[in-house]
Amino acid sequence: MFPFSDTTLAVFGPGLLGGSLLLEARARGVREVRVWARSEKSLEKVRERRLADSASTDARETARGADLLILAVPVGAMAGLAGEIVRAALPANAVVTDVGSVKAAVLAGAGEVCRRAGVAFVGSHPMAGAETPGLEAAKSGLFQNAACLLTPDASTDHAALEKVDAFWQALGCRTSRLGASHHDEVVARISHLPHLSAVAATLASFRPDASMAQFAAGGLRDTTRVASGLPSMWREILMENRTAILPALRDLHRVTGELLEILTEADDDHLLVYLEEARRLRATRYA
Amino acid sequence: MFPFSDTTLAVFGPGLLGGSLLLEARARGVREVRVWARSEKSLEKVRERRLADSASTDARETARGADLLILAVPVGAMAGLAGEIVRAALPANAVVTDVGSVKAAVLAGAGEVCRRAGVAFVGSHPMAGAETPGLEAAKSGLFQNAACLLTPDASTDHAALEKVDAFWQALGCRTSRLGASHHDEVVARISHLPHLSAVAATLASFRPDASMAQFAAGGLRDTTRVASGLPSMWREILMENRTAILPALRDLHRVTGELLEILTEADDDHLLVYLEEARRLRATRYA
Repeated sequence: MFPFSDTTLAVFGPGLLGGSLLLEARARGVREVRVWARSEKSLEKVRERRLADSASTDARETARGADLLILAVPVGAMAGLAGEIVRAALPANAVVTDVGSVKAAVLAGAGEVCRRAGVAFVGSHPMAGAETPGLEAAKSGLFQNAACLLTPDASTDHAALEKVDAFWQALGCRTSRLGASHHDEVVARISHLPHLSAVAATLASFRPDASMAQFAAGGLRDTTRVASGLPSMWREILMENRTAILPALRDLHRVTGELLEILTEADDDHLLVYLEEARRLRATRYA
Repeated sequence: MFPFSDTTLAVFGPGLLGGSLLLEARARGVREVRVWARSEKSLEKVRERRLADSASTDARETARGADLLILAVPVGAMAGLAGEIVRAALPANAVVTDVGSVKAAVLAGAGEVCRRAGVAFVGSHPMAGAETPGLEAAKSGLFQNAACLLTPDASTDHAALEKVDAFWQALGCRTSRLGASHHDEVVARISHLPHLSAVAATLASFRPDASMAQFAAGGLRDTTRVASGLPSMWREILMENRTAILPALRDLHRVTGELLEILTEADDDHLLVYLEEARRLRATRYA
C-alpha cells in the first residue's frame, strides 16, 4: 500500500485530473498536499474548496521537499515546469510523474529534464477523464477501476516506478507497464481514434440538419459523445500523438471507404462479414 | 388518451419491440392481447411469461376482429404478413401499423397491400432498441421518452393516424410526423450512419490488437457500442435504406479523409475548426 501518511504530495495543475488527485489525497489522509497553478484565479478555487494545505504560483516553492510530484498540466507545458521543479531542493527519493495522454514526448521532454538533474521520473497515464474539463468537474472516484499505463524505460529507477505504481493502485487504478512508443500506439487506437471517429460521425450526422437529432435514440448520443470534449485540449493531444494516430486514422478511412463500396454495390454478404467481425472484436472487451 | 380498455391488440413478432409492446399492453389493461410468431418455439416463451391472451402461428386467426395490429417482424417479412392479415375479417376501424426502421419500403410493401384491401395502414418507427435482440431483452419502459416517427401520406386515413399517434403517446413516446422518404433520410443520418461509424471505429481500433482495449476508458466503449448490434438485423436495415445511407456514408468518408489530410499536414488551426464545429453541432442536442 502507498504510505499516504508519510507523503508530501505536490500536484501541478488543478484541472479535472489534478483536482481529482487533490480530492483523493485529502480523502486518504496524505500528510501534506500542495498545489501549483499558473494563475492566482485557479488557486482561489482550490483555496475555496480547501483542497490543499498550500497553493502557489511558484513551482519551485511548491516542489521543495515534496516526495511525489505530479504534472497535471498540458503536455506542452510539462518540460518547462519540470525545469522549475528540479531547481528546488528535493528529497533523495522524490519522484516526478505526470498524467499526460502521450508518453514518448513527455519522456523526451519532462522526463529528460528530470534525468539530467538526477531526479527520478516515471511516465503515467491514468485512462480517466470526462468531456467537462477543469476543477469544477473534478471528483473523487474518477480513477476507480481506470487503467493506468506506466511507461518505464531503461533509465527508470526501480523504486520510483514501484512508488508510482503503488500510488495509482491505491487510487483504484489497474496499473500496467509498457514502453512509451508502444503506449502512444495503443492510445492512438483506443482513445484518439475513437475521438476522431466521433468527430467525423458528428459532422456527417448533424451537418445537413442538426434539429433532426431530436429524433435520435441512444446510438447517436453514444457514438458521438466524446466529440463534446474540449477542442483546445484535443487539438493538443491529437497533434502530439499524430505520428501514432496517422496509421490508425488511415485504417479508419480505408474501412469507411470499404463500407461505402460494399453498400454502393449492395453486397450484403460482404456487409455481414464486416458487421460480424466488428461485433466479435468488440465482444472481446465488452459484454 | 388511447382507449386501452376497448382495444383488441394483435402484435406480430414477439421480439425486443414486439415483446415490449406486449408488456406495455398488459400493464395498461388492454382488453385483449394477441400475439403471432413464425415458430411455436417463440410462442412458448410468450406463454411462459403470460404476455398475451392468445398466441398463434396463424396470422389470419391472430388478426381476426383485432382493432390495432402491429407488425414487429423484419421489414422484409412485413408485406407477406400483411397479405395474410387483410384476408381476416377485421373491424371497419381496424388499423395496421409497424415498427420498422425504414419507411418508404414498408409503405410500398405492407402499406400498399393494406391499401388495396381497404385496410387502414400507418407507418410507425419508435426510436427504441437495444443491442440485445429478442423477447429476453423486452422490457416495459422501452418506449418512454423515445421519439416515434409516423409517416402518413396522402392516402392515409385521418382517424387511423390519430389512433396510432395516441397509442404511441400513451406508451410515453414523443410522436412526430414526416414523409416516408424524409424519414428514411433522417434515420440514415441519426441512426444508420452512427452504426456504420461504430463498426468502422471498432474495426480500426480493435484489429491490430484487440487485447489493448482492456486499457480503454469510456470513449472507446461508447463510440463503438452500437457495433454490438445483431449483424443479421443490421444487414437488413442497412441494405433496405442504402439509397438514403449512401450520401451520408460518403460524407463520413470524406470528413474522415479531411481529418487524415489535416493531421498529415499537422494543420492544427484547421484541426481546431473541425473539433469546434463538432462540439458546437453536438451541443444543439446534447448538454
